[in-house]
Amino acid sequence: MTGKMTEIERWGRFELVLQGPREGNPYAEQEIRGYFGRDGQETMVRGFYDGDGVYRIRFMPGQEGRWTYRTESAAPELDGHAGWFACTPAEADNHGPVQVQDEYRFAYADGGSYFPFGTTCYAWIHLDEDMQRQTLATLAEAPFNKLRMCIFPKHYAFNSQAPDHCPFERRDDGSFDFERFEPVFFAKLERRIADLQQLGIEADLILFHPYDKGRWGFDAMEPAVDESYLRYVIARLSSFRNVWWSLANEYDFMEAKTMADWDRLLQLTQAEDPYGHLRSIHNGTRMYDHDSVVFYDHKQPWITHVSAQHWDATLPPIWHRQFRKPIIVDECCYEGNLPQRWGNVTGEELVRRFWDVAARGGYCTHGETFADEQDTIWWAKGGKLHGESPERIRFLREVLEEAPEGCKPIPEVYDVPTIGIEGQYYLQYFGIHRPAYRILDLPAGIRFKAEIIDTWNMSVTEIEEEMSGTCRLNLPDKIYQAVRLTRMVGRD
Amino acid sequence: MTGKMTEIERWGRFELVLQGPREGNPYAEQEIRGYFGRDGQETMVRGFYDGDGVYRIRFMPGQEGRWTYRTESAAPELDGHAGWFACTPAEADNHGPVQVQDEYRFAYADGGSYFPFGTTCYAWIHLDEDMQRQTLATLAEAPFNKLRMCIFPKHYAFNSQAPDHCPFERRDDGSFDFERFEPVFFAKLERRIADLQQLGIEADLILFHPYDKGRWGFDAMEPAVDESYLRYVIARLSSFRNVWWSLANEYDFMEAKTMADWDRLLQLTQAEDPYGHLRSIHNGTRMYDHDSVVFYDHKQPWITHVSAQHWDATLPPIWHRQFRKPIIVDECCYEGNLPQRWGNVTGEELVRRFWDVAARGGYCTHGETFADEQDTIWWAKGGKLHGESPERIRFLREVLEEAPEGCKPIPEVYDVPTIGIEGQYYLQYFGIHRPAYRILDLPAGIRFKAEIIDTWNMSVTEIEEEMSGTCRLNLPDKIYQAVRLTRMVGRD
Repeated sequence: MTGKMTEIERWGRFELVLQGPREGNPYAEQEIRGYFGRDGQETMVRGFYDGDGVYRIRFMPGQEGRWTYRTESAAPELDGHAGWFACTPAEADNHGPVQVQDEYRFAYADGGSYFPFGTTCYAWIHLDEDMQRQTLATLAEAPFNKLRMCIFPKHYAFNSQAPDHCPFERRDDGSFDFERFEPVFFAKLERRIADLQQLGIEADLILFHPYDKGRWGFDAMEPAVDESYLRYVIARLSSFRNVWWSLANEYDFMEAKTMADWDRLLQLTQAEDPYGHLRSIHNGTRMYDHDSVVFYDHKQPWITHVSAQHWDATLPPIWHRQFRKPIIVDECCYEGNLPQRWGNVTGEELVRRFWDVAARGGYCTHGETFADEQDTIWWAKGGKLHGESPERIRFLREVLEEAPEGCKPIPEVYDVPTIGIEGQYYLQYFGIHRPAYRILDLPAGIRFKAEIIDTWNMSVTEIEEEMSGTCRLNLPDKIYQAVRLTRMVGRD
Repeated sequence: MTGKMTEIERWGRFELVLQGPREGNPYAEQEIRGYFGRDGQETMVRGFYDGDGVYRIRFMPGQEGRWTYRTESAAPELDGHAGWFACTPAEADNHGPVQVQDEYRFAYADGGSYFPFGTTCYAWIHLDEDMQRQTLATLAEAPFNKLRMCIFPKHYAFNSQAPDHCPFERRDDGSFDFERFEPVFFAKLERRIADLQQLGIEADLILFHPYDKGRWGFDAMEPAVDESYLRYVIARLSSFRNVWWSLANEYDFMEAKTMADWDRLLQLTQAEDPYGHLRSIHNGTRMYDHDSVVFYDHKQPWITHVSAQHWDATLPPIWHRQFRKPIIVDECCYEGNLPQRWGNVTGEELVRRFWDVAARGGYCTHGETFADEQDTIWWAKGGKLHGESPERIRFLREVLEEAPEGCKPIPEVYDVPTIGIEGQYYLQYFGIHRPAYRILDLPAGIRFKAEIIDTWNMSVTEIEEEMSGTCRLNLPDKIYQAVRLTRMVGRD
């Protein structure tokens, strides 16, 4: 073996660039596949046309060592290229893609815990560059490690500006050619995904959404167009370790699609993505009426976790029983003061929902919707944060990340949401409830340190008295309190 | 016609007292029926043995005019008595029994609106006389017009004292003779029902409950005993215009009874009561899990209204669709600070639930559960009120009583609970939501006065600008706000 050796860190990105045919419509007419091999196993990844006669094949190696590759294509210029690269250990801040660990938890591919603390900037990549930079600067200081964002532009209340570029090529008459993609758009999107990766933020990419309403037609494309769009997106983006596939936002509001369409598109996403990035589908509010639930069947194997919208936050225990998958309540109302019900809860209420859902073994996602004269609203456009919830969400994230690994809901404490590990650790949240005291039913013979956590004021107060067996714990005359019980080491 | 004429006001009580057999067990062995006639129609009412050879037949006339009566019995001393009385118009504070008016509303028999604003003193009649008088004095100053109270004594947390008297006669060994009633107990109960009537308070009598647990056995009597108890209670009490029949509290926690038992006992209650007093059955919390609802079938014709327990307050719209009957959330957590979840919400939260449910076309019931060194807790024993909710509940009651007659939920305002009359009046409640403004979609050409109601601070602020058609209404930067829109008279 001679020549310069290519080194790619584990869960980094290898990219092969080739020149090829530019006649006709290469997006529709050409195909190139890469086969990446290690230890006698090969993984197929789809390449893509990037305009101007350039073809690319991207690959994210999941294991260290020597990887070979070869190409196949009907186009002679693209066929039969081969080579190899060395996959080196991941660098310190690279933990690999996030995966499902068990029915309650996520973890990075390197085994480290990942607790999703997302926020929402649906259309931020469609704003001007200055605004996008401001969003990134805000995210750099914020406590969030996941961002819900749309690929298609958004036409909705407080958000009606025209985007510079869209995933499809625009014709001179302003309409879109659904058979040609727009490389300029995707290059920008990829830059933003890489920016998020640098900040340790997962890009929860929303692949379809209903906020179009005839303006561009992206919500009502032909099935074959939906499919070629998905294939192209996955070929371009799946080698980014921080992408998640959110098939749709408020799928139940997309009238041009049926449940069978979503099944098909989710199955296609599962089949096309060689890395198994997280896959979800996010409901609107039709399922809100408890007596007529219209909710995607999250038991399907092509769904990795529940990405729900709900206007209250008490349902994760039911969804856990139904689906046995981690639950993120990706919309549970936003901190703000918009006229719409989903956009006008207080910081106190949003933080209450975060804690309540966390203490039931799920996770919430943040969004901010303060009325603004320029309609610069974080939830749609990014920009700056103004609310009171982010610092409290950081505090909760710290509490969860400090907890011992393996916490799960403790249903035996039936009347207060509680997670923990039996005999080791308990975290329970009282929310709007204000008991003067609680009678704890702890294991006898094990001594616990008790701490009272004021979740709004972000204070932790240790109780002097040790707790063990059936014992009484006095609580402050305040709402939004939590109790943390930690087994005392070496002193039983 | 000669002699002294007996006059009974409409919905008052006529009582015929007779001496009869005292041998054996007259409770089980004797029977007497009264037949009350007017305009050729007769109503049968059951008489009852009151001990010491005394038999009574009570009747509540529902119409003015001349009523005749006659008795029938197998016992010659009780058979064949006859006479008549004159039913005079009801006095000013006598509106008759409360009835169901439509699927959302109650009304007195005289047609006047009745909005239930209940409170809860489950075991108050089993406390000493001083304490009962204190409870009545508190109720006289409180805003409540319904009281949930148990007939049987209660053995439960914070309530374990022994009662003086029970509905059944106590044997020397302390056990109860389920074939003999205790007239001393019933006389006391009747005095309390009459006291409540004087205060304008409906007695929502809980006929069975699970808070016994083997202490007395009242929760697990034989079916025939349940039935003779119901017949006796109805014979004694149904002539009180302010009684309601709540068949059970937390029926789903009464393990000795099945749904079929409840059907049978409710049907018996319906058949025995000649006046059709309101009939309900109150659930425990098994139905709280949204995915496995165990809830009595309130569509049954022997149920007049829903008397629910629920830990949140958003469900009345669903129950309305299911049952088409008025809904009272008779337990929605209590203001207080007990360790148990049902007994430790703040005044703010309880008032929020009252408003939220009212704005969805239902009603809540109050209870108070502050920890107390003597365990003197209003919800169980009566006594004094300490909380912040009663005066706000009075304020809400005044707002509802001031509203034009015929308000119903307005489902067109899908995102804010709203009741009203289309084109006339709207009352909407924002609860924990804090919109900076709302775009109102009012009928064009009709002008409305807008008022902002601070439900916690009990203030009403009229907006200077008239509202009409599609218009913007700015709202204060606070939670717990409501908006009242009233058509301006004569100025369109």
